[in-house]
Amino acid sequence: MARSIRLAVIPGDYIGPEVTAEALKVLDACVSVDDIKIETTHYDLGAQRYLATGEVLPDSVLAELRGHDAILLGAVGGRPNDPNLPPGILERGLLLRLRFEFDHYINLRPARSFPGVPTPLAKDVPIDFVVVREGTEGLYLGNGGVVRRGTPQEIATEVSVNTAFGVERVVRDAFRRAQARRRKLTLVHKTNVLVNAGSLWSRTVDAVAEQFPDVAVDYLHVDAASMFLVTEPERFDVIVTDNLFGDIITDLAAAVTGGLGLAASGNINPDRTAPSMFEPVHGSAPDIAGQGKADPTAAILSAALLLDHVGASVAARKVEEAVVADLAARAGGPARTTSQIGDAIAARVAS
Amino acid sequence: MARSIRLAVIPGDYIGPEVTAEALKVLDACVSVDDIKIETTHYDLGAQRYLATGEVLPDSVLAELRGHDAILLGAVGGRPNDPNLPPGILERGLLLRLRFEFDHYINLRPARSFPGVPTPLAKDVPIDFVVVREGTEGLYLGNGGVVRRGTPQEIATEVSVNTAFGVERVVRDAFRRAQARRRKLTLVHKTNVLVNAGSLWSRTVDAVAEQFPDVAVDYLHVDAASMFLVTEPERFDVIVTDNLFGDIITDLAAAVTGGLGLAASGNINPDRTAPSMFEPVHGSAPDIAGQGKADPTAAILSAALLLDHVGASVAARKVEEAVVADLAARAGGPARTTSQIGDAIAARVAS
Ligand SMILES: CC(C)[C@H](C(=O)O)[C@@H](O)C(=O)O
Ligand SMILES: CC(C)[C@H](C(=O)O)[C@@H](O)C(=O)O
Repeated sequence: MARSIRLAVIPGDYIGPEVTAEALKVLDACVSVDDIKIETTHYDLGAQRYLATGEVLPDSVLAELRGHDAILLGAVGGRPNDPNLPPGILERGLLLRLRFEFDHYINLRPARSFPGVPTPLAKDVPIDFVVVREGTEGLYLGNGGVVRRGTPQEIATEVSVNTAFGVERVVRDAFRRAQARRRKLTLVHKTNVLVNAGSLWSRTVDAVAEQFPDVAVDYLHVDAASMFLVTEPERFDVIVTDNLFGDIITDLAAAVTGGLGLAASGNINPDRTAPSMFEPVHGSAPDIAGQGKADPTAAILSAALLLDHVGASVAARKVEEAVVADLAARAGGPARTTSQIGDAIAARVAS
Repeated sequence: MARSIRLAVIPGDYIGPEVTAEALKVLDACVSVDDIKIETTHYDLGAQRYLATGEVLPDSVLAELRGHDAILLGAVGGRPNDPNLPPGILERGLLLRLRFEFDHYINLRPARSFPGVPTPLAKDVPIDFVVVREGTEGLYLGNGGVVRRGTPQEIATEVSVNTAFGVERVVRDAFRRAQARRRKLTLVHKTNVLVNAGSLWSRTVDAVAEQFPDVAVDYLHVDAASMFLVTEPERFDVIVTDNLFGDIITDLAAAVTGGLGLAASGNINPDRTAPSMFEPVHGSAPDIAGQGKADPTAAILSAALLLDHVGASVAARKVEEAVVADLAARAGGPARTTSQIGDAIAARVAS
């Protein structure tokens, strides 16, 4: 009997719905290749809903989302510098709230080069690593404040909170992934300046490493790691890092492997106490919306991560292979629209 | 009458003294081309002194350093993972202490490509921007702590402190530099997550911008900026950012312009209430020490920044031109030793 997946879909704003439609098209095609059934419920959330109604994430919607097996998100975000949409409203109120409420402590971001896809780098080396970014702590908590706002005496603070509990679980997850890959784990932090948090991260990696003697452990300061991501990205296998460093280096990783059009991510709760959420790393790109220009590949690869998470690994592999084949076929060919790319990948999956 | 410059020299560890010797050679050559005299006093500080004596920066040395016009630093740091040298000892106790004690609120890091120098990027575009990194606030203050260390309940915090006073002065300095260059300033921050500090930085840029109507202002999140540094580094003119973001993006900037061998920096106190300090961005590189392999160019370019700071701009331009000419001449030629490079650049300066 087919496994039934209850999927909540948050298409979001601008290109969000465009790429989500293609990811759903590909998921539909999966039904013929794996023993799954997918029931979707769409949720209208994002900048447009906020601007129209003032609502970001009503508690009732949060409760409904919780009832699903997984969430597929397109992209949310308004026009740059919209005075009615101050920075942080959607980020803190929607994206980060979901990560915190659903305890998405693994923010998984694979970075790989694809044959046929040009990169900005001069050297042509195969790149294949995964960043395991902590998703529920660090500077993302919203801990901090302001005194004497708007005066010459203003002080604004941001507090990075790191717990043994939170660091240990993400480090352990990263070791497990390293063990299933090329068995190399790199901790990225800034232990020489952030000595409190840095010490906790380092000691935790050292302690967990004892249980994974077959995994080689390396450490890089975040500034050095950023350089290596440009000069020697092929050296990485699994990177584990905190929330903010992970934010920066995963965009960098996307840049060196061919751009945000291909960068997928999973906000994962491995304990399955709440649904995990899968989304392309890119934003809602108002500037190219409505023109069929958005590349749905990152959304489709995020759907593959979702399939893996719900146990449909046959379908997940099929989707990844279809993407690889499509990217190779794209090389040098004419530009295709968002839906043409989705059609092509869906057809390859079903074939 | 020649202007006399009292220069404190901190050669430091491993390749630090090697590259510093070449920078001093070039400074010596400057005496024949500008109306300056340079008196140097050497200070033995760094990992080796700490390991031998337990001293990092004695107060008496700090007081002596204060009596100088400028400081030239090579690089400090011990062997990786030396158990006798915990992370942070030299960084917090020496490098950052000097920045804080001498109020080096401008951490100036030029990034430019040089004809003849290969970069890791596929496209060959001229890159020429400068990062104005805040040097005395943010996450570098050492504000934070640990509770229940070593237990499963451990919590480690790091606090980023940002003041209107501190942000305003660095932003104003960056606008002045932009005005003297291509008149484009980019604020890099993470205003959508770090809403307290982000708001202070944004509002400060907006307020100061009113006094610089000829400077075009742009904003990028640090993750997006990191991408653009790889895909479109030519778009930048002046970047202003906080201490930690500046640390990361200046290493990235060094990577895309040809490496740490060329990356110079100035820790500048523009109010001249204490000496400014000039140093290559690279570290002490124990692995290549003693082999004549270190590239002294970053130290020499740091000396050029120093010359500018003390008003010897004729000499500063001479050094920069000599470096550009030497880099072009190097292209394709046999590898040269540290002192051969220093000799060649010094000879060009004197010629
Ligand atoms: C939109 C923003 C809150 C988010 C983050 O910083 O995590 C984004 O940059 C990402 O990487 O998913
Ligand atoms: C050594 C370290 C404290 C320092 C920093 O983080 O500022 C270094 O990385 C730099 O960029 O000068």
